[in-house]
Amino acid sequence: MTFIHTLATAWERNDSLLCVGLDPDPARFPAHLHGRDDAIFEFCKTIVAATADLVCAFKPQIAYFAAQRAEDQLEALIAHIHAAYPCIPVILDAKRGDIGDTAAQYAVEAFERFQADALTVNPYMGRDSIAPYLAYPDKGVILLCRTSNPGGSDVQALEVGGEQLYERIARLTAKEWNSSGQCALVVGATYPAELARVRALVGDMPLLTPGIGAQGGDIAAVVQAGQTRNGTGLILNSSRAILYAGADEHYAQFARQSAQAARDAINVQRTKS
Amino acid sequence: MTFIHTLATAWERNDSLLCVGLDPDPARFPAHLHGRDDAIFEFCKTIVAATADLVCAFKPQIAYFAAQRAEDQLEALIAHIHAAYPCIPVILDAKRGDIGDTAAQYAVEAFERFQADALTVNPYMGRDSIAPYLAYPDKGVILLCRTSNPGGSDVQALEVGGEQLYERIARLTAKEWNSSGQCALVVGATYPAELARVRALVGDMPLLTPGIGAQGGDIAAVVQAGQTRNGTGLILNSSRAILYAGADEHYAQFARQSAQAARDAINVQRTKS
Repeated sequence: MTFIHTLATAWERNDSLLCVGLDPDPARFPAHLHGRDDAIFEFCKTIVAATADLVCAFKPQIAYFAAQRAEDQLEALIAHIHAAYPCIPVILDAKRGDIGDTAAQYAVEAFERFQADALTVNPYMGRDSIAPYLAYPDKGVILLCRTSNPGGSDVQALEVGGEQLYERIARLTAKEWNSSGQCALVVGATYPAELARVRALVGDMPLLTPGIGAQGGDIAAVVQAGQTRNGTGLILNSSRAILYAGADEHYAQFARQSAQAARDAINVQRTKS
Repeated sequence: MTFIHTLATAWERNDSLLCVGLDPDPARFPAHLHGRDDAIFEFCKTIVAATADLVCAFKPQIAYFAAQRAEDQLEALIAHIHAAYPCIPVILDAKRGDIGDTAAQYAVEAFERFQADALTVNPYMGRDSIAPYLAYPDKGVILLCRTSNPGGSDVQALEVGGEQLYERIARLTAKEWNSSGQCALVVGATYPAELARVRALVGDMPLLTPGIGAQGGDIAAVVQAGQTRNGTGLILNSSRAILYAGADEHYAQFARQSAQAARDAINVQRTKS
């Protein structure tokens, strides 16, 4: 089953557009996990168990694992999600980008080693830097378009021939790069008007939208701007607001409450067909 | 000692602008290394020993290690280079790029875990995505500007206000982002005219220039276009043409001959002051 199809099934089955971002920071773990060699895996596994029926995807951010020498725990975590929750796709957030031969190695890393269902990719190096990921027909390739950080405008908002660069990236992806139907785009929640603009350019292409939790994006504005006509099309990511909703050994319960509140707040705004 | 200073010292000490890219592909290793758990480390260590007096830097490409679950060998390799050849800086080619909190984790990965002297970074997400790397004052931050792959033009050559995007990135880096003097740029060898344009925009900033070996860049045109007035300023990378110059157990000798020929061909074109 392809990433795009698994995602669509998860939207429906869990009645959710929420994605839980797995950004494990050991300094913020509850005390009972401190000092354990498998603390990152255990923390994330518990969050996954507490939220798996509330989400459309999980999104581990590889930097948090790499900074801790924990690639083995990332492998184990993704394998665990596939085994225990096979209907929930895993997006590896790594924002890779390089020339073809090297991109082929990153594709091996993401899709063969880590067994991710989809990977975030940086479009700055152009079409042939994306092609090696598209060579895996079941996988999703999620290109950065408009990011949620303050400096995102430095480059992405530059005017190119009557439109902004992020609009050009959206059009290039929709019209030229997505012939296989595997692509999606990252469009931050902090700019709902731009999210609406991207939606208008790309039809029903899925949009991964970070920034609804700790980064402060407005859920109502984001859902109204970004959903498709059938009330889906969005992967609305929250990381810290869910992972660290509670700081003690009951963190799973707080994470679940936070995820449920986010899912419900999103669903109130959806156009259900 | 800072990356920029170490690099300048290596240019002078080894009379070389050549950088050897470490892109280890086990399928191309000589037969006597097949099946060894430490084959990647041993292969690269031998290449390093054969070329260390001929280069201004080594540049391991992290994708080749990550695809093989060989982060431990990358750590060991960089530690070995620092111990055995302390005058040669190590550039970790990883092209990272993410929002601030995540970029801080990538900075830990590159500078604390792997102990790289410099890191390649993607500028698409703007200034605050670069700041966490600049927080390490001794380290180099090498931003993608104009890449050597065919699709590089898809985005980098777009017109933005009377110049191309790669020129804007060069100007932003030189005028706004490089206040600490830690920055350098990636400008591919396949477009010498654009290399000359970047050189005119950024003064004496170091330029990492891949593409002179297997990718076919013209050494004479590249050196003439990219060197500074004192005949330095370039980090001219060759990977496959050196690593795989010979396929049998004498590969180190062939790698040395290839590196020496490249260094000498570069030096013929340099303006020595």
